[in-house]
Amino acid sequence: MKVSIVGVTGYSGLELVRILRQHPQVEIRSIHSQTAVGQEISVDYPHLKGLIDLPIESVDPEKIMAASDLVFFATPSGISKEMALPFIRAGFPVIDLSGDFRLKKAGSYQKWYGKKAAPLEFLQQAVYGLAEFRKDKEAKLVANPGCYATAALLSLAPLVQKKLIEPDSIIVDAKSGLSGAGKKLSSSSHFIEVNENMTLYKMNTHQHIPEIMQQLQKWDEAIPALQFSTSLIPVSRGIFATTYVRPKEKASTDYFYDIFSAAYAADPFIRIQEKGHYPVLKQVIGSNFCDIGLAYNQATNILTMVTVIDNLVKGAAGQAVQNLNIIGGYPQEMGLRMLPVYP
Amino acid sequence: MKVSIVGVTGYSGLELVRILRQHPQVEIRSIHSQTAVGQEISVDYPHLKGLIDLPIESVDPEKIMAASDLVFFATPSGISKEMALPFIRAGFPVIDLSGDFRLKKAGSYQKWYGKKAAPLEFLQQAVYGLAEFRKDKEAKLVANPGCYATAALLSLAPLVQKKLIEPDSIIVDAKSGLSGAGKKLSSSSHFIEVNENMTLYKMNTHQHIPEIMQQLQKWDEAIPALQFSTSLIPVSRGIFATTYVRPKEKASTDYFYDIFSAAYAADPFIRIQEKGHYPVLKQVIGSNFCDIGLAYNQATNILTMVTVIDNLVKGAAGQAVQNLNIIGGYPQEMGLRMLPVYP
Amino acid sequence: MKVSIVGVTGYSGLELVRILRQHPQVEIRSIHSQTAVGQEISVDYPHLKGLIDLPIESVDPEKIMAASDLVFFATPSGISKEMALPFIRAGFPVIDLSGDFRLKKAGSYQKWYGKKAAPLEFLQQAVYGLAEFRKDKEAKLVANPGCYATAALLSLAPLVQKKLIEPDSIIVDAKSGLSGAGKKLSSSSHFIEVNENMTLYKMNTHQHIPEIMQQLQKWDEAIPALQFSTSLIPVSRGIFATTYVRPKEKASTDYFYDIFSAAYAADPFIRIQEKGHYPVLKQVIGSNFCDIGLAYNQATNILTMVTVIDNLVKGAAGQAVQNLNIIGGYPQEMGLRMLPVYP
Amino acid sequence: MKVSIVGVTGYSGLELVRILRQHPQVEIRSIHSQTAVGQEISVDYPHLKGLIDLPIESVDPEKIMAASDLVFFATPSGISKEMALPFIRAGFPVIDLSGDFRLKKAGSYQKWYGKKAAPLEFLQQAVYGLAEFRKDKEAKLVANPGCYATAALLSLAPLVQKKLIEPDSIIVDAKSGLSGAGKKLSSSSHFIEVNENMTLYKMNTHQHIPEIMQQLQKWDEAIPALQFSTSLIPVSRGIFATTYVRPKEKASTDYFYDIFSAAYAADPFIRIQEKGHYPVLKQVIGSNFCDIGLAYNQATNILTMVTVIDNLVKGAAGQAVQNLNIIGGYPQEMGLRMLPVYP
Repeated sequence: MKVSIVGVTGYSGLELVRILRQHPQVEIRSIHSQTAVGQEISVDYPHLKGLIDLPIESVDPEKIMAASDLVFFATPSGISKEMALPFIRAGFPVIDLSGDFRLKKAGSYQKWYGKKAAPLEFLQQAVYGLAEFRKDKEAKLVANPGCYATAALLSLAPLVQKKLIEPDSIIVDAKSGLSGAGKKLSSSSHFIEVNENMTLYKMNTHQHIPEIMQQLQKWDEAIPALQFSTSLIPVSRGIFATTYVRPKEKASTDYFYDIFSAAYAADPFIRIQEKGHYPVLKQVIGSNFCDIGLAYNQATNILTMVTVIDNLVKGAAGQAVQNLNIIGGYPQEMGLRMLPVYP
Repeated sequence: MKVSIVGVTGYSGLELVRILRQHPQVEIRSIHSQTAVGQEISVDYPHLKGLIDLPIESVDPEKIMAASDLVFFATPSGISKEMALPFIRAGFPVIDLSGDFRLKKAGSYQKWYGKKAAPLEFLQQAVYGLAEFRKDKEAKLVANPGCYATAALLSLAPLVQKKLIEPDSIIVDAKSGLSGAGKKLSSSSHFIEVNENMTLYKMNTHQHIPEIMQQLQKWDEAIPALQFSTSLIPVSRGIFATTYVRPKEKASTDYFYDIFSAAYAADPFIRIQEKGHYPVLKQVIGSNFCDIGLAYNQATNILTMVTVIDNLVKGAAGQAVQNLNIIGGYPQEMGLRMLPVYP
Repeated sequence: MKVSIVGVTGYSGLELVRILRQHPQVEIRSIHSQTAVGQEISVDYPHLKGLIDLPIESVDPEKIMAASDLVFFATPSGISKEMALPFIRAGFPVIDLSGDFRLKKAGSYQKWYGKKAAPLEFLQQAVYGLAEFRKDKEAKLVANPGCYATAALLSLAPLVQKKLIEPDSIIVDAKSGLSGAGKKLSSSSHFIEVNENMTLYKMNTHQHIPEIMQQLQKWDEAIPALQFSTSLIPVSRGIFATTYVRPKEKASTDYFYDIFSAAYAADPFIRIQEKGHYPVLKQVIGSNFCDIGLAYNQATNILTMVTVIDNLVKGAAGQAVQNLNIIGGYPQEMGLRMLPVYP
Repeated sequence: MKVSIVGVTGYSGLELVRILRQHPQVEIRSIHSQTAVGQEISVDYPHLKGLIDLPIESVDPEKIMAASDLVFFATPSGISKEMALPFIRAGFPVIDLSGDFRLKKAGSYQKWYGKKAAPLEFLQQAVYGLAEFRKDKEAKLVANPGCYATAALLSLAPLVQKKLIEPDSIIVDAKSGLSGAGKKLSSSSHFIEVNENMTLYKMNTHQHIPEIMQQLQKWDEAIPALQFSTSLIPVSRGIFATTYVRPKEKASTDYFYDIFSAAYAADPFIRIQEKGHYPVLKQVIGSNFCDIGLAYNQATNILTMVTVIDNLVKGAAGQAVQNLNIIGGYPQEMGLRMLPVYP
């Protein structure tokens, strides 16, 4: 399968390059960005020297569709909702890593992203690409989930699908490394403001909240809202999400382990930890794994899920390749079995 | 006031030196440790060269009581419960930074610390030194609170004292820097295991839980238990505690701000943040401040407190100096108005 | 002494506030910046809340001279060479932390800073404020040295003054934390580009080179040039400079220790380490110390100086306060005996 | 080719697993360590869960030689000099990542490692596995170079082989991340001592010095010694080596670029940077590249090489796989074309 990557110079775009370079069935045919057009990518990204010597091109849909079989959009929000339209209209496979096609309601996009949404028909047509729960295998337009949303939904799915928890009891306390905030320069990404620091931001206003709610309510429409806290910790990669819920009925710790183990038995990228063991961030960095540990507190009837992912892999480029594998009819692990980079 | 410091080579002991060196009414008369006795402290701690050239001494209670007016124990748990006894019996002022005198029930100490408790009469005699809420100004034996406990209790006090929250709804998600774990070598403090990582540890089993519960139940005996998660983040200093509670009745954000502002109006080290602003860890590092921000989510009826302290200052040595100021009859801010070290 | 600080919101300006707040003879009368004029500084710098509640003002020389006895310029290069002129003309004491008055030759400033220099008469009038070697105690205009220059010159002074080394043999390999690069947003200060990284920049083109050469040639005019490498390491504060020179004659290690010990015997902020011990960066952070270790390699006849300073203290605000102490006739350690912040 | 790894739980051993897992011609048959024998490796190293589920075994040479075609020793120094002997005697291929077979002179090993050397015949038989310069392709016993030695020798080879520099002018200022120091617990690897710090250690006494000298003198026997400084910087992986030399004759910058470009024209893992560009540490992390930038200072006649490698890849496990590729007759890039992990 030949692919093109639009937005290649962002962190997710570069990570797509890193992963796809090792995929046995994929060839990267062209890479696209708005800056440095015409230049070989290794000039500004010297880590790629001798590995990828493609020039950066501007986006010409006809040319891309002629040369490739699928296009990734790894652009900031607000770009693909316009730039991807020619591809979608032509029925050409699109995997969009931005938030532009995740929300089914145009008003919701407008509210959380502060921009006009893509045309409603395209929003309806898009399939939400949470790979472990993706239903429509035939869809040509995939809205790849947000990194926080991936961590939160994988933490909650087994419980919410079975309606086991009090609908108003969900609290997600999520911590992220800086690559999740993208390359844009701002005082909040200056080394001095991040190093030796921890910062809570977008309290209950993060744009991943509506896609989480949309999916949770598909599973259990009784869920009214959730408490969602997002913080930055001084690491480059990774999301560490601690999720608290109150089960409808008290149960044993084993009971909840069994629920999770059964729910993810067929999913090679979800690794439920041994009882009493909680995953550390580093054990998934560089890989497509989502590792989950559980703690059930009998005294308070609070069940805690500790979930870690690499925001750029399972939370972005890796999951996008899972979605490519579905589109291409390949085994879901193809090209994605790389080991975490430890230490 | 002349003071002696036992356990001077631990992080809290060294921080006591840093703070007391600037206290206008205090002179450090002697410093004590079990290692390197006889050596000047600046040999192993070269940052002190030319500043503190006292030799490290072993502990001789008679000699200390003859030379000093007060003794700090900045020792690991299990030391002061024996080593401080001669001082306590003699009615000599003791401020203990360890957990040995914090719990009123010997069985509780035994359960959470895995050691035999100090004699019950001394546990009863000790006053819990949460400075903002310390009642008995005359006490000679002060049990300085734990760092996590300080952050959690200051986050909850205004609400629990007024019985405003559902008793079973408290969730504390606390993140700490590595100095909180002390100098002991273990794989969990190796740079490689901490850097670019985040780790949850002692889930619901941290030894600060019983002192938090003991104090919360003094304020509202209906509190049955709490959910308490402790994590390590890759910073040297600081605790960032996110605390979630469910108010008994829905209210406005302003209402909760007013509660906190009123509760801490007379407390110079508690800084309630402006509405919509959450404190970042770095804004208290090196100082004795405890900064608190609030977020009330109408949709979920969850009130969140975001609280930051420097675990070695307000969470240890700084609060100990507040307690010294109470004992000495000095203004509580004396020697403690140093600015945070930013950036 | 009443002082005003222009450029208070930069890292050096904030550090001046931190230090001067504890100086027993100084009162900060006004603080100045080009942004957020009229706002209390604690709004944008919440670490100052309750400590400094002065409003930020624009710069009105008449008003400053009426209210204060001395003005600090902690502005980026290119500002004070114009904004300080009214003060200098009036004979009002100015301590400039920028590079604008350090170079005696206007052409040199133009070459290294890419800007037109201050009027020549003012360049001539300024005294270079390397505190340990400052000659003219009466000067009203002090050009506070650059951070790299401070580390390099203090490493070399005892040798160069005595003309002990081969003039063409000086190599300075200096590593700096990010606060040295200031608050300006650039991709090189983005957390992702700094964390887990090390970067060499401005190879042999750093603007501190000419002031180092100017001073070295005062001491030994035979010095023709030096090799000067500057790198960024992922820490917030500190300069770690490794300086290599070839002595004219082979000697013993003791010989060089004696040279350094004698040269700095009267300087409380220069701490020569014990033989065989090299300073670590952390042992000076937050303090005004410059710690120096020596290693003489008989086999290669290379003498290595390992020198650490806090770039914001001894390399900027602390040395500026040393210069204030000289102007005010105070003991040079006044207000500067704060302990390093360890750990 | 079937391989066994002795010392699998060290950082280099784990990195061998990460790399070999992707090598198309290699199968890991068994893994060995002295601890946790019998346990699956993913119990203590949860990042490997679902990827490598081999049990850890003790070392039985007969069994290993029966099952595998080659054995790696990724053990600390002092182990393989005894444990590898049965393999060597049997003519079984051994790649030793420790220092035990690098030095040709037993006395030198004794001096620098403080231990008795391996039998002299085996020292003589071993080939030094600096892959780009490895002569004897048939050797069965490969002594894989040290990480610092790899960076230093690749920086110097083109110049020293052609005898272009003053023999007594070599200064290597090398900075390393913490994984280079191994997993052993010591106060120097405690997070608090590393974070926000930089430390110089083993000044002119690092055990990689003799292997560097041994190789340099093979190329130019006039080299008498070198100045070699090793420091720790707060990163997990990577060596950043700045090497200063004085050319025998002044020349242009282009001249030196041409020397290096020609010397490494056939070496895919050595990437000479564009003129005026210096490599940053991060651009090689996770990969087998050694990136080199040059700066020639006409004023001082000092040529500087700025060289970066990942100490665990090109400095250990990656170079070991290069050596496996030579032994197996595979293309040298096989299994080693993974992209650096950026960001």
